[in-house]
Amino acid sequence: MFSRLSRPISRATASIASVNQLTVYTKSRKSFGLTPSSAMAEGKYPAKKHAQKVVDHISKRSPSPNGVLYLEAKHTKLLEDNDEPEPFRQRRYFYYLTGCNEPDCYFAYDIAAQKSTLFIPPIDSDSVIWSGLPLSPEEALKKYDVDDVKYTNEVNPYLAHVGASYSKAGKQTSVYAIADQVSEQTTFIGFDQKDFQTLKPSIDACRVSKDEFEVGLIRKANEISTEAHHAAFKKAKTASNECEVEAVFLQKCIAQNAKEQSYHGIFASGRAAATLHYVKNDQPIQGKLNMLIDAGAEWECYCSDITRTFPINGVFSPESRAIYDIVLKMQLECIGILKAGIVWDDVHALAHRIAIDGLHTLGILKGDKEEMFKKRVSVAFFPHGLGHHLGMDTHDVGGNPNYEDKDSMFRYLRLRGEVPEGSVVTVEPGIYFCNFIIEPYLEDAELSKYIDKDVLDKYWDVGGARIEDNIYVTKDGHVNLTTTAKEAEEVENMILTA
Amino acid sequence: MFSRLSRPISRATASIASVNQLTVYTKSRKSFGLTPSSAMAEGKYPAKKHAQKVVDHISKRSPSPNGVLYLEAKHTKLLEDNDEPEPFRQRRYFYYLTGCNEPDCYFAYDIAAQKSTLFIPPIDSDSVIWSGLPLSPEEALKKYDVDDVKYTNEVNPYLAHVGASYSKAGKQTSVYAIADQVSEQTTFIGFDQKDFQTLKPSIDACRVSKDEFEVGLIRKANEISTEAHHAAFKKAKTASNECEVEAVFLQKCIAQNAKEQSYHGIFASGRAAATLHYVKNDQPIQGKLNMLIDAGAEWECYCSDITRTFPINGVFSPESRAIYDIVLKMQLECIGILKAGIVWDDVHALAHRIAIDGLHTLGILKGDKEEMFKKRVSVAFFPHGLGHHLGMDTHDVGGNPNYEDKDSMFRYLRLRGEVPEGSVVTVEPGIYFCNFIIEPYLEDAELSKYIDKDVLDKYWDVGGARIEDNIYVTKDGHVNLTTTAKEAEEVENMILTA
Repeated sequence: MFSRLSRPISRATASIASVNQLTVYTKSRKSFGLTPSSAMAEGKYPAKKHAQKVVDHISKRSPSPNGVLYLEAKHTKLLEDNDEPEPFRQRRYFYYLTGCNEPDCYFAYDIAAQKSTLFIPPIDSDSVIWSGLPLSPEEALKKYDVDDVKYTNEVNPYLAHVGASYSKAGKQTSVYAIADQVSEQTTFIGFDQKDFQTLKPSIDACRVSKDEFEVGLIRKANEISTEAHHAAFKKAKTASNECEVEAVFLQKCIAQNAKEQSYHGIFASGRAAATLHYVKNDQPIQGKLNMLIDAGAEWECYCSDITRTFPINGVFSPESRAIYDIVLKMQLECIGILKAGIVWDDVHALAHRIAIDGLHTLGILKGDKEEMFKKRVSVAFFPHGLGHHLGMDTHDVGGNPNYEDKDSMFRYLRLRGEVPEGSVVTVEPGIYFCNFIIEPYLEDAELSKYIDKDVLDKYWDVGGARIEDNIYVTKDGHVNLTTTAKEAEEVENMILTA
Repeated sequence: MFSRLSRPISRATASIASVNQLTVYTKSRKSFGLTPSSAMAEGKYPAKKHAQKVVDHISKRSPSPNGVLYLEAKHTKLLEDNDEPEPFRQRRYFYYLTGCNEPDCYFAYDIAAQKSTLFIPPIDSDSVIWSGLPLSPEEALKKYDVDDVKYTNEVNPYLAHVGASYSKAGKQTSVYAIADQVSEQTTFIGFDQKDFQTLKPSIDACRVSKDEFEVGLIRKANEISTEAHHAAFKKAKTASNECEVEAVFLQKCIAQNAKEQSYHGIFASGRAAATLHYVKNDQPIQGKLNMLIDAGAEWECYCSDITRTFPINGVFSPESRAIYDIVLKMQLECIGILKAGIVWDDVHALAHRIAIDGLHTLGILKGDKEEMFKKRVSVAFFPHGLGHHLGMDTHDVGGNPNYEDKDSMFRYLRLRGEVPEGSVVTVEPGIYFCNFIIEPYLEDAELSKYIDKDVLDKYWDVGGARIEDNIYVTKDGHVNLTTTAKEAEEVENMILTA
């Protein structure tokens, strides 16, 4: 998912996840050959390690911080004019320090004591009648990587107690929280300073580099989505409408208990693939050449984000195949050079150079390639960024984009500068034939000379092609977490033999 | 869906709907033999008729109202800490007067001129590049039953103009709007009175009685959901986990372009069926007796709400069948007496009497039946209400419940008093074996004597049974809009021959 618009699907409760986390962990350990933390060895999300990582980050800026980190889960809220709750989506900051995907919980981390406490809602007898017993504190302690579990009515007494302990020891104390994410009823009595500015950017900074458990979750989300993409390849051939393909994709994810999508999927057939934010997914398929699917399941709050383009009838037309091969080359070469420290802007530029080269060979572009690169002509066909950080958000934190950039080639690039070690990024080049985007180039006296309108006219029905994988960036290289078929012949065979 | 907790699934764009609306209309006309309004004849949602109905309702309370009705669509809003929009759910009040399921629109109805104006967002050139062309005013005028379509930047000038016209004519003018649903930038200059109290309850009152077009939409939602329920019947036999059945259900709905569910579905196997608000849908199925599915698709903002209970292996156990037969009898007899004016409390009481009779015959209950009814013993097995209004909300407006009622039999009844002509109600009796609910009765010295613990103990594995249909209430009777299989043998055969 390369861009801005998307709509997630409602909440998944995921209580069988604890079983699956062990599998995820085992897989990720096998992949990376690392020694697990004790939480990970138990198959738990390493929440405490994250809390300590955040404290370490804060310490670099304000040495020896005292007090507590304080976070609140997303609160249950009713839909407007309705008695049903809004779709639940856990606050990512809360999840990062707790691994807890439940609403209405609270969290505190005592910095000096290195002690984490999760607060869960007390048992409501009326609610038990309707919904059964909730997780007990004992069960929560087993499930989550925290040191203690209390009920939420103990939040204020606990905070007051910790504040007083620090005071007794003669220490200045701070509570670190996130602005606009502190309930009115929470009092920070006994704390000298309320810091609502430091915590969020500190967690953001820590989230960029993923640990092996997080990578395991993203890998698991990718495995689920890969099965869904392959089912979609096979379905499109006989489907009459895009919604039928979307339906099969979602079925495959939900049947694996991945109830949430990372973002609102794009299921675009024919020329609709050139509409970058296509979300209608309701048009007839037959008679069209290709289908572009940009969709990925979430697993335990971690995202996958995969795009594939394939011929609906199982055989690429010559024009489609030519474009597909250029895009695949853009993707493979860009992935090939990925390692920690590489400048993402340069990788993005490489994709453009390959696009120019390929479109030039096809005759769609004409003239001097270096000149075209400098004049950003390829932006007419590849208008979006090469990729972005991926994690608990599809467009994960830490990208430092500059949407005010005057340079059209980089304006929509969501990741700028060096790629950090341990980050997961998407690599998703594309080439599109979108009249709204290309027409201004054709009408521009200076730029139109680089485009051969007659050749271009043969390609409109291709619609667009994009290929997107999720890449874990290591010190010396990278690991591709996406195993969805993408070689043209492999995709064609999968469809033809379905 | 009988109760409070549910979570909807993200937004559907539904632009193929206009095609289907004609079908819906045709079907509903065939069913009811009525003469259509001109909007309906064109397959349009009868928004203008609704506007006039609301004005007529207001007129009964404040004669000869002058001025405008003013409504805003749901606004696009980003998820917290994220660059993606929240799932979109149109404001029902707005939809009722416009038939427009798009965000960020506005609406005004000039009462004296009987003229409706829809305001749609102006074209944003950046957005066109990413999302393609939005609906033009001309297209919107064709699609919606309104008299005029303007851009949203004309809202304030339009309102000022209308206000001034009334003033010129020497009339006192009011603007009728809904509290907390008026944007800050909207000015009501030129209006003598801003009434934020009248409009909402007036629309609520009008929404209770559905016109044929609305009934057609609910019927269409039912047809889609019926196919999904039948597919779920067949899937459970071989599914290993509840999520696989949920996945098939959702697939069948989405493949028919019904992208929204009316509420978060319940897919409960075995004893989980006794947890009335079960939403996890993630437990193993095999080895369990029955499955209860309470789920329904939305179609063009109108809901279906259907529950079925079936034997996972295709054959009811003797205990399951006995309970199922009681519930089916409760449902059929309650539906049988429905017509406009009947007191819903009485229908609910009838269901309890049939439950007592049936459980008494099985030996689960013992003693005098009238005594048991008076002491509300059957509430231990049938703790929720018989049904509720159904419309644009699953728990639709106009029910007048009394959740403070001291009488346990009626406390959770969402509809009280006479059933209005033209309303659509759910009829959803159930019998459950839920230890949290039954235990207090067993421990009560007075009530325990009515329950035979030994006989009861044979029934825990039945879990629970509920059967729910959607019924259109007419002057002299009713029409059942739900055609999902429910006769025990029919359901068994459907599973056995799958």
